[in-house]
Amino acid sequence: MDKDYSDFLGLVKELGALDQIGGLLTWDEETYIPPGAVPDRAIQKAALTGIVHERLTSKKMGRLLSVLKKRPRLAPDQRVIVREMARKHKRATAIPKELLQEISKTESLAMQAWVKARKARDYRSFEPLLRKMLGLKARVAECVGYEDRPYDALLDEYEPYMKTAEVEALFSRFRDKLVPVVSRILDCSTKVDDSPARGDFPEEGQRRFLMEIIRQTGYDLERGRMDVAPHPFTVGSMRDVRITVRYDPHDLRPAVFGAIHEAGHGMYEQGYLEKYYHTPLAESISLGIHESQSRMWENIVGRGLPFWRHFLPKLQGVFPSMSGVRVEDFQRAVNTVKRSFIRVEADEVTYNLHVMLRFEVENAIFSGKLKTPEIPGFWNERFESYLGLRVPDDAQGCLQDIHWSIGALGYFPTYSLGTIYATQLYDKAKKDIPGLEDQFAQGNFGGLLGWLRKNVHSQGKRYGASDLIKRVTGEGLNEDHFLRYLKQKYGAIYGISL
Amino acid sequence: MDKDYSDFLGLVKELGALDQIGGLLTWDEETYIPPGAVPDRAIQKAALTGIVHERLTSKKMGRLLSVLKKRPRLAPDQRVIVREMARKHKRATAIPKELLQEISKTESLAMQAWVKARKARDYRSFEPLLRKMLGLKARVAECVGYEDRPYDALLDEYEPYMKTAEVEALFSRFRDKLVPVVSRILDCSTKVDDSPARGDFPEEGQRRFLMEIIRQTGYDLERGRMDVAPHPFTVGSMRDVRITVRYDPHDLRPAVFGAIHEAGHGMYEQGYLEKYYHTPLAESISLGIHESQSRMWENIVGRGLPFWRHFLPKLQGVFPSMSGVRVEDFQRAVNTVKRSFIRVEADEVTYNLHVMLRFEVENAIFSGKLKTPEIPGFWNERFESYLGLRVPDDAQGCLQDIHWSIGALGYFPTYSLGTIYATQLYDKAKKDIPGLEDQFAQGNFGGLLGWLRKNVHSQGKRYGASDLIKRVTGEGLNEDHFLRYLKQKYGAIYGISL
Repeated sequence: MDKDYSDFLGLVKELGALDQIGGLLTWDEETYIPPGAVPDRAIQKAALTGIVHERLTSKKMGRLLSVLKKRPRLAPDQRVIVREMARKHKRATAIPKELLQEISKTESLAMQAWVKARKARDYRSFEPLLRKMLGLKARVAECVGYEDRPYDALLDEYEPYMKTAEVEALFSRFRDKLVPVVSRILDCSTKVDDSPARGDFPEEGQRRFLMEIIRQTGYDLERGRMDVAPHPFTVGSMRDVRITVRYDPHDLRPAVFGAIHEAGHGMYEQGYLEKYYHTPLAESISLGIHESQSRMWENIVGRGLPFWRHFLPKLQGVFPSMSGVRVEDFQRAVNTVKRSFIRVEADEVTYNLHVMLRFEVENAIFSGKLKTPEIPGFWNERFESYLGLRVPDDAQGCLQDIHWSIGALGYFPTYSLGTIYATQLYDKAKKDIPGLEDQFAQGNFGGLLGWLRKNVHSQGKRYGASDLIKRVTGEGLNEDHFLRYLKQKYGAIYGISL
Repeated sequence: MDKDYSDFLGLVKELGALDQIGGLLTWDEETYIPPGAVPDRAIQKAALTGIVHERLTSKKMGRLLSVLKKRPRLAPDQRVIVREMARKHKRATAIPKELLQEISKTESLAMQAWVKARKARDYRSFEPLLRKMLGLKARVAECVGYEDRPYDALLDEYEPYMKTAEVEALFSRFRDKLVPVVSRILDCSTKVDDSPARGDFPEEGQRRFLMEIIRQTGYDLERGRMDVAPHPFTVGSMRDVRITVRYDPHDLRPAVFGAIHEAGHGMYEQGYLEKYYHTPLAESISLGIHESQSRMWENIVGRGLPFWRHFLPKLQGVFPSMSGVRVEDFQRAVNTVKRSFIRVEADEVTYNLHVMLRFEVENAIFSGKLKTPEIPGFWNERFESYLGLRVPDDAQGCLQDIHWSIGALGYFPTYSLGTIYATQLYDKAKKDIPGLEDQFAQGNFGGLLGWLRKNVHSQGKRYGASDLIKRVTGEGLNEDHFLRYLKQKYGAIYGISL
């Protein structure tokens, strides 16, 4: 290995180690940190972020990248690592330190204002800070640069290589096909009973059951843990991947589907190849691809009939009160569809309408077609037309999510991209693995996990998301897989033809 | 505040934040880390240590220190911070990176060799690596520099400002007075029954009892936690101080006295002043002073009659099987004195002989009076003369401790310095606070903690250990406080005149 490349790899791996340290700081902050230590954690994270930024933008890194980018004889793996580090270096270098500090300061002010505004249902008190934050993010877009639209530069942080125009076209088709399906489900006369998922479920029993599920599906507890946190998340990579869950003692769904969802994220992070550890070839492609893994396991696998053919008897072993429940009734109980205002409580059918609405707001703002004072009106009108509900106040409307206050612009679309990726990948896996769902009914999830390992996880950041999907499935992004999945599954559950 | 000083303080506080991060990495490694992630933790710690070293030895730090050292108008607090950072900078700069790397490499080899050698009771297989490690530490001493003895430079890492000659004189007096007291206790005919401390004590009950003890003595659980670890330790400072314990389901002593010991360390770290956070004025003076806090709480307070007058009824509430036990019998049970080979299992009476023997070995080596092949002979002879036991093999002799394999030379003496500091400070506290031990019997430990806060904790690194002791107690280091304490306590327990 030549000296320049090995020096470069040293820097890359150090950044990887610092990234893992940052993950631990986050994990601890959400799980075991003493209350009095919370304010200090922000200082520690800022110190670490500063060091990462300094090293990523260092002259040495810049010099090595420009040397290596011109070198003709790099191996393909090396080329990917150089390409991805160059992207990170470029982005970090492009944004001036003062702008970052201004964003960070505005973040804490805007978050406080958001908390208050949501409580008081008073969008106007939040609007000035939101306007400021959007202005700062517009400056970020100018610094980073873009070919077509400013929003491209923001989207690229969460969904690298994806373009606004591509999302716009995809979501527009998707929304137009989804709205009528949602209406037909919501307006039909069938009422699905969710009582089998409710009852008295002490935490210790739920925990034992979750451990059985995540172990069986393939989350590796030698290289991971499961703890409790108020807002479940997954953190870490490869040999240290930690998931969290929260328990509702009267409802199995939050913990069970939360754990399967996070384990889906976790299995992705555990699935990179050892030889690429601490390089971009052992990093996730995008938030969308990440979300495709969690949603595939949670919704397609975990809310499916075959899954519960295997796991319902185990659940009945832990909670004998469940012993009279039929598997078909249980699966229906965990797949109810409802009109609701709050995105994070929405089912998989309506969820994407919540998400696409947010993308439409962001896209309109960054195309100059919408001003911040007009957001509530825009939101409420579209919400009613997509979901048939009148938004009673902004706390249940455009003030419900934290994302905008912390400057996470370009993040929302990744949720629905994940949904689309998930069904498209799953349909291909089903084609490649005969009897896949029969395997689930036998408690065997290794076929699917192996397929994902090979086709997705082990690739790291080798390809962008669209490229990967095309290489694996043989076609471009196609929302019809998800629509077909919905129609088939909910047609059966609701006893209607969709 | 002038610009140089505020730039300097920025660097100091960043190092403080990195130090807290390092503490979290250690805590997690000993508590919740997934098994597969252990090897990566060493990489993360090395990355962080490298960054700390780089920043501590940076040109900017060097320049600011030399400017500030010459500045006449620094406030007293500022002068302490500059003085202590200059010491750290000098030490870090003096040791070449190659030597540090060589030590770090030798550490892992020597530790592996030590584990094997101890298992096989084969000192000779460890000797070459021990010799190598001692040679490297001698080089460290030459790099760091010393006025009198090379060992000064090593001792200074753990017990700043303390000199070898001072320890030598103190320990020599101490040992000569201690040996006959130990013999009289061990050779008397009284047998103390420790069965009240043994029985069936499920972990959950022990834990509840420990929480009550540490909360009541003053360990702040808003700014700390208590977890389980195989080798108990304390980590962190000020607003994030974590202690660990281990449970023996059949013996109360390991958890109870382990928790009081670690809470003693913890209360020290929680006792710095807010305004000094992340500077040397909110750091411990030395390992010896640290140990004085843990040993004072564990042995003087925690193994005393007044303490158990308050806590035995609580213990009986948790474990009704203890209800027949008299407080005098319980206190005797937790103060048995025994001849034993292993330092970490020794009682407070014999413990110091174990420690002083180790200092004698180290001191003889670094004065050129002892060669590594001669260590077992030297050890066994002195051990028998101090403790009256023949060492059967080196696993129970000079191979028992990890310290030498990891290059912790100069560390052992701090244990006995801590003992001496502890009783000397405690005697002064008793003089200053009338009825101190009656307060303990009422469950009130705030008087002692407040006294320690004021006289020790809040001082940070303002004074060296000897200076602090002299300022607080009005006299130089004096082993007679400990000897008087021993004679009085064990005279009563063993019913003999000492």
